[in-house]
Amino acid sequence: MGNKISTVINFDWKPDRKNQLPLSKQIVNYITERISRGDWLIGQKLPSQRDLAKTLNVNRSTIIEALSELNSLGIIEGNFGGGTTITNNTWSLLFSAATPNWKSYIESGIHKANFPTIQAINKLEFEENIIRLSTGEMSPDLFPHEMMKKVLGKIPSRAFSLNYIEPLGLLELRKALSNYLKSFELDVTPSQILIVSGSLQALQLVSISILRPNSTVFIEEPSYVKSLHVFESTGMQMKDVPMDENGLIPWMINKSNIKNDTSILYTIPTFHNPTGLTMSLNRRLEVLRWCKSNQLPIIEDDAYRELWFDELPPVPLKAHDSTGNVLYLGSVSKSLAPGLRIGWVAGPEPVVERLGDIKMQTDYGASSLSQWALTEWIESGLYEEHLKSFRTQLINRRNFVLSFLDQYFADLASWNVPKGGYYIWLKLNLSISTEKLFELAINENILINPGNLYSFTKNPYLRISYSYASLDDLAVGLKRLSEIIRSL
Amino acid sequence: MGNKISTVINFDWKPDRKNQLPLSKQIVNYITERISRGDWLIGQKLPSQRDLAKTLNVNRSTIIEALSELNSLGIIEGNFGGGTTITNNTWSLLFSAATPNWKSYIESGIHKANFPTIQAINKLEFEENIIRLSTGEMSPDLFPHEMMKKVLGKIPSRAFSLNYIEPLGLLELRKALSNYLKSFELDVTPSQILIVSGSLQALQLVSISILRPNSTVFIEEPSYVKSLHVFESTGMQMKDVPMDENGLIPWMINKSNIKNDTSILYTIPTFHNPTGLTMSLNRRLEVLRWCKSNQLPIIEDDAYRELWFDELPPVPLKAHDSTGNVLYLGSVSKSLAPGLRIGWVAGPEPVVERLGDIKMQTDYGASSLSQWALTEWIESGLYEEHLKSFRTQLINRRNFVLSFLDQYFADLASWNVPKGGYYIWLKLNLSISTEKLFELAINENILINPGNLYSFTKNPYLRISYSYASLDDLAVGLKRLSEIIRSL
Repeated sequence: MGNKISTVINFDWKPDRKNQLPLSKQIVNYITERISRGDWLIGQKLPSQRDLAKTLNVNRSTIIEALSELNSLGIIEGNFGGGTTITNNTWSLLFSAATPNWKSYIESGIHKANFPTIQAINKLEFEENIIRLSTGEMSPDLFPHEMMKKVLGKIPSRAFSLNYIEPLGLLELRKALSNYLKSFELDVTPSQILIVSGSLQALQLVSISILRPNSTVFIEEPSYVKSLHVFESTGMQMKDVPMDENGLIPWMINKSNIKNDTSILYTIPTFHNPTGLTMSLNRRLEVLRWCKSNQLPIIEDDAYRELWFDELPPVPLKAHDSTGNVLYLGSVSKSLAPGLRIGWVAGPEPVVERLGDIKMQTDYGASSLSQWALTEWIESGLYEEHLKSFRTQLINRRNFVLSFLDQYFADLASWNVPKGGYYIWLKLNLSISTEKLFELAINENILINPGNLYSFTKNPYLRISYSYASLDDLAVGLKRLSEIIRSL
Repeated sequence: MGNKISTVINFDWKPDRKNQLPLSKQIVNYITERISRGDWLIGQKLPSQRDLAKTLNVNRSTIIEALSELNSLGIIEGNFGGGTTITNNTWSLLFSAATPNWKSYIESGIHKANFPTIQAINKLEFEENIIRLSTGEMSPDLFPHEMMKKVLGKIPSRAFSLNYIEPLGLLELRKALSNYLKSFELDVTPSQILIVSGSLQALQLVSISILRPNSTVFIEEPSYVKSLHVFESTGMQMKDVPMDENGLIPWMINKSNIKNDTSILYTIPTFHNPTGLTMSLNRRLEVLRWCKSNQLPIIEDDAYRELWFDELPPVPLKAHDSTGNVLYLGSVSKSLAPGLRIGWVAGPEPVVERLGDIKMQTDYGASSLSQWALTEWIESGLYEEHLKSFRTQLINRRNFVLSFLDQYFADLASWNVPKGGYYIWLKLNLSISTEKLFELAINENILINPGNLYSFTKNPYLRISYSYASLDDLAVGLKRLSEIIRSL
């Protein structure tokens, strides 16, 4: 199925300067040992000479010496400038048996590898000095550190053990959520709520629990789920539904693609990812009516709801759902801390129980520590308190970024003014390949998410997030990005 | 595929005695509303009259009145003694549209429902007053509460935010583990370690990342993975490998079932679940040699290693693995707290990276809170300290249970004396159906795991766990269980 094995190997090691063995010899020994043990595989690449010298903290001449020896041993091959590849692991009689053919295992696995751009983003996000203009997370500066300290202090007196939890999740948390969700005009009992390890896991559970190969999943065009393989890897087909400024347009759904009892609609009606749009009240009612009359169930992903700026968004589709048509997904990943890995699904009891049964079979439930922590956050009122200050800081960040867009991008792009959430959907005027822009920006230590991650067609969009980078980084990054675009 | 929808509905509600409406009318209104909203579905069953009266805290006559009215409205049907079923949700013009056909969605989902016995166990474990003789968890009494308090107190000064974490998991934790695993004679770098949400998730990731439909997974007979659908649900086939007192017997593997680059061996060589057996050193070397020469990779699940009693078990297969043949799974679920939901996979870098990429696509990583907590547990030395006292307590519990077995089961069964871990594998002398025994025991509020959960054939075994129940419960439960068996 073409999942490529990762190519460049990692060094977590440095030669020992106190060792009597020459540095280059130590390097040769280390590399041969790692290869002979099967930690590194044939086909993997070594880092460039420059990177090796830097990582191992030795002179480049030492690296050249070591690579020459490895080459003469027949262990590596290739142009030393960049592409040194492991070619052999059987040079020694001691290691005459080959390792299993892991390459073949990896390449034929069921689940698709992440898109290369996403893999690159996942790793680059942990590089130092990179300016992250698109990251869909809250800035570490905004993390409510003191409140979390209070919450953690309360856990020992509540959680007398950290054992496995019942299939739907911690009852105390489900009760707290059942109560909290009333503020969104949702009326769901604790038995209708399943705790999951974030909304992405909810989608994964939906795909393996209530859909089947060839099921159709209708999604907004664009949509952040296109950057994932969660539906595709289990054989489902994603079909686009166009959006206008009021949200997705249900009557544009091609009815002939609705297969009986196998299709579902996935939507982020509030502060949509990536466009920042919010579905109007009227459109919500129309979507519900249309889906009801076509027996098309809805997954409503409401992760951004609490991050409104000037006015409350319309209540969830689920609040108007009188026939059990909507599976409602919530999460604290955007509003509090993604690292808790806690979200929830609310819907008809048998569906929620089915998802819970499969969750038990895949990971035995979400972290109890995280579940107790969130229970305490909600019950203590600290969660609401945090949201108030978080909203204010997000508005300031949005305004800050809008002022820089006005300053640097007025003639380069157009954009929406989001009323909540994290994102500005920037449309470039010029016909530039945003994938090319992605690469040029990385060379300048700027990380952006090009629009083609959210759409199956090439498009002139970038997702800009005002939630993550520091204000300084946002200012510098946007200026530099505008200069790169101008240089094209 | 025949996943049944759950049948009995849950009540999280009681009628309001201050309300002027008669209690039976309130009950009718509540039930019709829940059904009309699609929270409960056609085909689901109401609890028995007795259970309803108890749950709703009303007289049985009130229940009979309410059920009669629901029956005359055509909403429910059936024998009121036990099997009242929801039959209609369209009695009102207000709710003329049907809900989506969730039943069909559930029944045709890809992943198989848990075995009914496992579903029952998962739920019964959270009933009050039930004696759990088989539960594979540590007793809440053994939870190191004071140490956990210390650990949680340290987190705020370490975790400055709880954002998403890099694909392989928290670097600090991987470094701590890389170092800790040296005590098992394992030499793995942080780049060779992936943090997962428990070992079960590791198996789930293996099944969707490096196996494919029709892959063969060789497993011990018996094996706890048979109680799961983790391999079956993705279309893999499990093949038995017989065990003797030294562990699985590799030369009994049918070579014709090894398909090139699609097969894998799953083993728990140390304090095996459910038999409690430990593979000898010689057998470990034989397994490795056999698998190496047949290019069969090994998953080594080592969750129980640290729970040894009188002497250290042989070092892991992975410690002897010179060719990258072994994927090593570890976890703190048995040794510290399953609720942390933290385990790890160590193996060749490209395999670990592949699993990490797929983990990112299914749940964006394990709880950061749990990862920080475990880092602190290990680095502070509290983990080792806890293990020392935990081992002593487990030995006492094992001895306690053995003494009761001697007293009550001497003529009924035979068993091994485990040298570590949680389990005694009890073989009944009589030819009793252990499934039948499971039901009879539940009637007496005793929960046991019959041997057929771990084997595809009927067998006379029970898994007894000395880790979970209180000493009083173990004493009472074993005595009562012996009486039930004698009564047959």
